[in-house]
Amino acid sequence: MKIAVLPGDGIGTEIVAEAVKVLQVLDLPLEMEQAPVGGAAYELHGHPLPEGTLNLAKSADAILFGAVGDWKYDKLDRPLRPEQAILGLRKHLGLFANFRPAICYEQLVGASSLKPELVAGLDILIIRELTGDIYFGQPRGRRTAVDGLFPGADEAFDTMRYSRPEIERIAHVAFQAARQRGRKVTSVDKANVLETFQFWKDVVIEVHAQYPDVELQHMYVDNAAMQLVKSPKSFDVVVTGNMFGDILSDEASMLTGSIGMLPSASLNDRKQGLYEPSHGSAPDIAGKGIANPLATILSAAMMLRFSLQAPEAADRIESAVKSVLAAGYRTPDIWSEGTQKVGTREMGDAVVAAL
Amino acid sequence: MKIAVLPGDGIGTEIVAEAVKVLQVLDLPLEMEQAPVGGAAYELHGHPLPEGTLNLAKSADAILFGAVGDWKYDKLDRPLRPEQAILGLRKHLGLFANFRPAICYEQLVGASSLKPELVAGLDILIIRELTGDIYFGQPRGRRTAVDGLFPGADEAFDTMRYSRPEIERIAHVAFQAARQRGRKVTSVDKANVLETFQFWKDVVIEVHAQYPDVELQHMYVDNAAMQLVKSPKSFDVVVTGNMFGDILSDEASMLTGSIGMLPSASLNDRKQGLYEPSHGSAPDIAGKGIANPLATILSAAMMLRFSLQAPEAADRIESAVKSVLAAGYRTPDIWSEGTQKVGTREMGDAVVAAL
Ligand SMILES: CC(C)[C@H](C(=O)O)[C@@H](O)C(=O)O
Ligand SMILES: CC(C)[C@H](C(=O)O)[C@@H](O)C(=O)O
Repeated sequence: MKIAVLPGDGIGTEIVAEAVKVLQVLDLPLEMEQAPVGGAAYELHGHPLPEGTLNLAKSADAILFGAVGDWKYDKLDRPLRPEQAILGLRKHLGLFANFRPAICYEQLVGASSLKPELVAGLDILIIRELTGDIYFGQPRGRRTAVDGLFPGADEAFDTMRYSRPEIERIAHVAFQAARQRGRKVTSVDKANVLETFQFWKDVVIEVHAQYPDVELQHMYVDNAAMQLVKSPKSFDVVVTGNMFGDILSDEASMLTGSIGMLPSASLNDRKQGLYEPSHGSAPDIAGKGIANPLATILSAAMMLRFSLQAPEAADRIESAVKSVLAAGYRTPDIWSEGTQKVGTREMGDAVVAAL
Repeated sequence: MKIAVLPGDGIGTEIVAEAVKVLQVLDLPLEMEQAPVGGAAYELHGHPLPEGTLNLAKSADAILFGAVGDWKYDKLDRPLRPEQAILGLRKHLGLFANFRPAICYEQLVGASSLKPELVAGLDILIIRELTGDIYFGQPRGRRTAVDGLFPGADEAFDTMRYSRPEIERIAHVAFQAARQRGRKVTSVDKANVLETFQFWKDVVIEVHAQYPDVELQHMYVDNAAMQLVKSPKSFDVVVTGNMFGDILSDEASMLTGSIGMLPSASLNDRKQGLYEPSHGSAPDIAGKGIANPLATILSAAMMLRFSLQAPEAADRIESAVKSVLAAGYRTPDIWSEGTQKVGTREMGDAVVAAL
């Protein structure tokens, strides 16, 4: 089984190194090959997603991804900026189903912005469609307005769009995931304003007919942003489009207080997947050896389960992470009085030891 | 001075009645005329925004609006649904500047989902552009896809767009508002993905050159949704487009724990304005006499200040609301141990008495 290892920028190299270390002690036939991506790839090859990196990713069973981005690339033309690498990988590999769990770890309840009783035991799964919507819709660009409020003025525009098969396949993913959990799906839309999301809602209702054992609820995106704050535990599986999912999954993961702990998976229809932490490249703490590697280590566990048919190894990693937390090890982002502050490498070592 | 009073649906009639009562004791030359809107107007005239209501709104100096919507209208064709009234008023009156304060009242800190130290003293002003973006962009509709991932499939689409003058005028509004407050503006965009919001960012930077005394910060919308949870007090004025503003302003108002207290204003370039509470029509508690009228009463105060040149009367109302809270009166939504639970009418009476 072949894993493409793409550490990227900022803390990416540090956290991915720990996940690789963990994978190596598992005694599984894993072939890992590393390649540059994002700003690091731009520095070396003049492009955030060089052909060699893309080909490696395509040929692998799974991709272990760190993070990309740094302020120093803000001035580059858009196609050369680090985040284009992640958009390019999603598009070229057809990674349409993004799984973002928002879990509040028992020992980390206090780290949440929310009151403990609102987040203790929180376990939401946000499923974000990842290859459609306004992220990729054409046409887009700049032009002179011919109508609207200021005809003749310069304007910029983008196209939001979803086709029936795109909505159907992500709806199936959500209903099937709900069957493994609380059997409830909240489909988030803006059907009261957008044609795209009225259609989204209509198609989700049709697909739901095949899942009578799963409860389906519809919620407007503005209300969802509120309910996540008001009563996050009322959600089980949330399914939504690319743009709304971008916003709500980040909101939800920050609510848990443990964004440094949250993995994510992006899958295509062949179960090939890209696995990355939910947090970003954090250039402000890069190189200091203090980043939390657990989200990346848990992403490696998701990878073993979803793409590499090694669910037992995934379980072992997850238990190891739990025992490390129980033993009181904490990187600075999740540290609190009475626990032991450790760095990136020590945390990785602790997980290896627990294995 | 003429006020169009549009109570609407659900709790709308109850809360607007209290605001009208408050306005009446001010001893100002206010002419108030009432008209149906939303579902109530659909029942009477077959349309959520009948011509008579629209004309009244156009001819008034200001509109006092309750709320619209009820599940029972969900099956209607979209142009007949209650929320079309509010979209129609925004469009026909050109109400492009939406002011949504997110304030955490001292006595209500405990009602927030967030830990007290994160919200005590919170005072953010979200300025949402309200007549552009994907809400009104053409073309939109359904069609057969000619390109994209599934050519030949049914698809639905919408157009996001902003022209230079639309961005310029809302940027001026934000910078000017910041001058009255903390002199900091956070412009929220998604410039890393959307052409529309790269243009937004470029134009906001240009306008900023005229406000060297105001600090300007740019933030991606997903990050903004996180930072609102993590450190809401780091914001002063937030300016963003119609769609992102819809989501973030609801998130921010729910963070305060006092959404039943938060007013809003939507202004055009002639300072004509629509004033409404930030919360919705709450059909589940309609007719029970328990809705909180304070957001609507505070909206009336904003109306006096922004559209009716009566800032002293506005101050008086705001002080009266504060003293009523200090005296311990609470509607059920903000009630806590040790305070006195009152209904909608008693709360209105208490404000009148305090005046
Ligand atoms: C970097 C950016 C393009 C990306 C997105 O918007 O999808 C990121 O925010 C994410 O959620 O993975
Ligand atoms: C009712 C709906 C059309 C409206 C909007 O999306 O603008 C509402 O959510 C609001 O924020 O006033």
